[in-house]
Amino acid sequence: MLRLKSLVGGRWVEGQGAHAALVNPTTEEPVAEASTAGIDMGEALAFATERGGPALRAMTFAERGELLRAASKAVHAAREELIEIGIANAGNTRGDAKFDVDGASGTLMAYADLGKELGDASYFAEGEPIAFGRSSRLSGQHVLVPREGVAVHVNAFNFPAWGLAEKLAGAWLAGVPVIAKPATATAWMTARLVERLDEAKILPPGALSLLVGSAGDLLARLGPQDALAFTGGSATGTKLRGGDNMLSMAVRVNVEADSLNAAVLGPDVTRGSETYELFLADVVRDATQKAGQKCTAIRRVLVPAAMLGAVREDLADRLSSIVVGDPSSDTTQTGPVATRDQLRDVRAGIDKLASAGSVEVVVGGSSRPKLDAALGDRGFFVAPTLLLAKAARAAGAVHDHEVFGPSTTLMPYDGTAADAVGIVRLGQGGLVTSVYTDDKAWAKAAALGLAPHHGRVYIGSAKMAGASLGPGTVLPQMVHGGPGRAGGGEELGGLRGLSLYLQRTAIQGYGPLVDGLVAGAKRV
Amino acid sequence: MLRLKSLVGGRWVEGQGAHAALVNPTTEEPVAEASTAGIDMGEALAFATERGGPALRAMTFAERGELLRAASKAVHAAREELIEIGIANAGNTRGDAKFDVDGASGTLMAYADLGKELGDASYFAEGEPIAFGRSSRLSGQHVLVPREGVAVHVNAFNFPAWGLAEKLAGAWLAGVPVIAKPATATAWMTARLVERLDEAKILPPGALSLLVGSAGDLLARLGPQDALAFTGGSATGTKLRGGDNMLSMAVRVNVEADSLNAAVLGPDVTRGSETYELFLADVVRDATQKAGQKCTAIRRVLVPAAMLGAVREDLADRLSSIVVGDPSSDTTQTGPVATRDQLRDVRAGIDKLASAGSVEVVVGGSSRPKLDAALGDRGFFVAPTLLLAKAARAAGAVHDHEVFGPSTTLMPYDGTAADAVGIVRLGQGGLVTSVYTDDKAWAKAAALGLAPHHGRVYIGSAKMAGASLGPGTVLPQMVHGGPGRAGGGEELGGLRGLSLYLQRTAIQGYGPLVDGLVAGAKRV
Repeated sequence: MLRLKSLVGGRWVEGQGAHAALVNPTTEEPVAEASTAGIDMGEALAFATERGGPALRAMTFAERGELLRAASKAVHAAREELIEIGIANAGNTRGDAKFDVDGASGTLMAYADLGKELGDASYFAEGEPIAFGRSSRLSGQHVLVPREGVAVHVNAFNFPAWGLAEKLAGAWLAGVPVIAKPATATAWMTARLVERLDEAKILPPGALSLLVGSAGDLLARLGPQDALAFTGGSATGTKLRGGDNMLSMAVRVNVEADSLNAAVLGPDVTRGSETYELFLADVVRDATQKAGQKCTAIRRVLVPAAMLGAVREDLADRLSSIVVGDPSSDTTQTGPVATRDQLRDVRAGIDKLASAGSVEVVVGGSSRPKLDAALGDRGFFVAPTLLLAKAARAAGAVHDHEVFGPSTTLMPYDGTAADAVGIVRLGQGGLVTSVYTDDKAWAKAAALGLAPHHGRVYIGSAKMAGASLGPGTVLPQMVHGGPGRAGGGEELGGLRGLSLYLQRTAIQGYGPLVDGLVAGAKRV
Repeated sequence: MLRLKSLVGGRWVEGQGAHAALVNPTTEEPVAEASTAGIDMGEALAFATERGGPALRAMTFAERGELLRAASKAVHAAREELIEIGIANAGNTRGDAKFDVDGASGTLMAYADLGKELGDASYFAEGEPIAFGRSSRLSGQHVLVPREGVAVHVNAFNFPAWGLAEKLAGAWLAGVPVIAKPATATAWMTARLVERLDEAKILPPGALSLLVGSAGDLLARLGPQDALAFTGGSATGTKLRGGDNMLSMAVRVNVEADSLNAAVLGPDVTRGSETYELFLADVVRDATQKAGQKCTAIRRVLVPAAMLGAVREDLADRLSSIVVGDPSSDTTQTGPVATRDQLRDVRAGIDKLASAGSVEVVVGGSSRPKLDAALGDRGFFVAPTLLLAKAARAAGAVHDHEVFGPSTTLMPYDGTAADAVGIVRLGQGGLVTSVYTDDKAWAKAAALGLAPHHGRVYIGSAKMAGASLGPGTVLPQMVHGGPGRAGGGEELGGLRGLSLYLQRTAIQGYGPLVDGLVAGAKRV
């Protein structure tokens, strides 16, 4: 059995005691095991703080960019190997795994380019100097400097490569070392990725540590200069950010959690139009890619009441024709969900949504789908599922329970932007909502109405249909996160993604002295 | 007895049941009473959300600026009346009360000017549009839009006017209504200030509510679009931000709490020099102004070991000559602390600091100072107190217990910037540290070393001595807040102070459509 190791204190170590099993979600056979028992989290933290921090802070932005570029290349070089691990340990189809791995290398490369642009500085001067009083003797200047702690990244099971990379990129470019703790169930890909980075001899000692297994008491040891970035379920996010030291020492916490992302079909869109097809394609992709296990996947589909029949028919047709099965087969479009727990939660979630009086299952559902006989009764499979909520505002759990699998719920609205916004905001804050329309005024009303409740609003239309990646793809240039239930966090967005790791400090003093002090900083 | 009222649901209401007494800290006689019992916090929240929010969001930045300008003028017009209340209810000298009231009107005016500059937009487009892919068909644009909730401002007892204004300015300019809850003990000034704003007929209904007394269950009702800004002790801040709904719904929380602000005398500064005199004046001002009850006051004074004797002598001379007494007298330099609880805490705090083996009381201490006989044995008076910690790194509670009164602790360091930074950071994050030097290289090393641990670093030097307001004055153009123990918050700083109230949202779509959508936004 492959025993995964953690990278702490600058060396690869095996945990002790009972190990957790990582399984193949298609066959349910164990593929690896992991444990962090016996690892001294205090030492791990100290090594990252005392070795990794100073090393990264001593580098210029351009040098940190080169580190990210080398990391991107190392991930790309490991692509085939990582894809195979994704198929074997995460239930990924080849396409699902590529999406994850290429997302990782692409994000690292985008931040590498940003580092190159920033050049030879190692911190920022923000805004112009401010003169106080009539003389210019006293002035003020804000700086953004790397914090002197560690970034702990607790990642979700669904993106073992991209999840690591999207958090790493901002922390490293800011100059802060990372301790990554991927979800154990799919940590094999992350562990192999980090091994490849280490084998490529690009890692400054302490710049990246890896915990494969429990985080132990690591989070309870974090202090004022540290940051925690968490992606996962709301309940866990709530618990982590509520830790005593987190609250009393104002440890910075970024949470990206549950989100009832919506897609809204505009009232101008007719069946069969280019915009309509884009809408259908996005909904179907999000329900099936990675077996619906994307934090940005569309969970609610709002269409004008008059279009309900047509959309129901078209989505039902497409979703029921999706081939579910062994992800190692080229003909499979949707693999299993990642774990037995996920299977249980997704099935229970579908039943929960369907239990409301006005909600019915159109296709799919919580039962095991029909599969190739070779699979027997094994594997964590869920059929692509379409639910219909006839009354959007009386749809029970549809607006507050995220089913993290291949499931989405269709519902009608009255065609006005105001009604759409009113229904969508029942989700209490989300990562992204998409609207599909070619009506400029309607797009504006919907987008600005949705904006306060989301980290991102995506407008699908005929003129961009060919260039669209869909709302489910997180781009490094755009912020990723959302208010409320979605955790209130913010990642990526170019330089914005460095904020979690930088301290903004006002420097006041004699004007020429302050100017000289920040002469070497990158002005932003 | 004056019974203070709350402004909720658009009208002034009196609480029911037992009222808390507000006393004159000089005479210990009650001057007013307050209660919020019986006030429906759900209704208060709904009125602010449903009436105040839309009204403010419908205004342009320029119009919100005019509202702030009118508020500033109304505060200034009430200046004499508010100063008298400060003397009677907060133990302020006339100078202390002016500092508070003029800080309030000045901050409101600074944000009024900012509103004028921002002009006719009502939200922001942040950064330039980003093109994706080879065509320009798909592009992205970040916007910053007002959140649709309420800003709850829980303010500290020490600045009943300025504390209200500094939080109000950013929220209103962003377009978010405020429910202010000043500390009950000194809420008379805040209540009268809000009454004056109301009498001036400048308040859009719901834009400002006031709770004089307990916040009841208000905070437990906050949701994803709301924000809480708290200034006060760390223990309370920790408790408030740990509320179930705060954590699970990612209610935005800004905390400004305890801070062991330091002043560091550079190794180049000689006794009697202009920089030395500036240093002494700043330390003495912060120990005596508002009886040391400023969150930015200097609690730790670091001097090169060779200067310890000289500074000890000079500070002892100055602090022991301070006239403590009835703040209504023009000759009084330091009045009482604000409440009996403060008196108890400050006395206990001085004893706690002095209990470490290496710490001694140089002047002042926890006993009642000698006072004018007319005061009898009444009033919450504390003598300006200088403690000496002979070994800075073995100074016990000096680095982790804030004595919120006229007390500061002197200690030696070895003259290097690295040693000063190392000692200062034992405070685990602070609002501001000041350094006094005319050596550019030393200033740079100290300032950049201190920066990650502070919201502000102040460099005192001969060339700016005449223009300096001291490190204790919070300026609207500079951020105010600090990491770690200081709460991790950030207020003011010009436009930066609006962040707590704005949602950053990425808009993606067809390039020209997105450009048109934000055509009316202010680009920042």
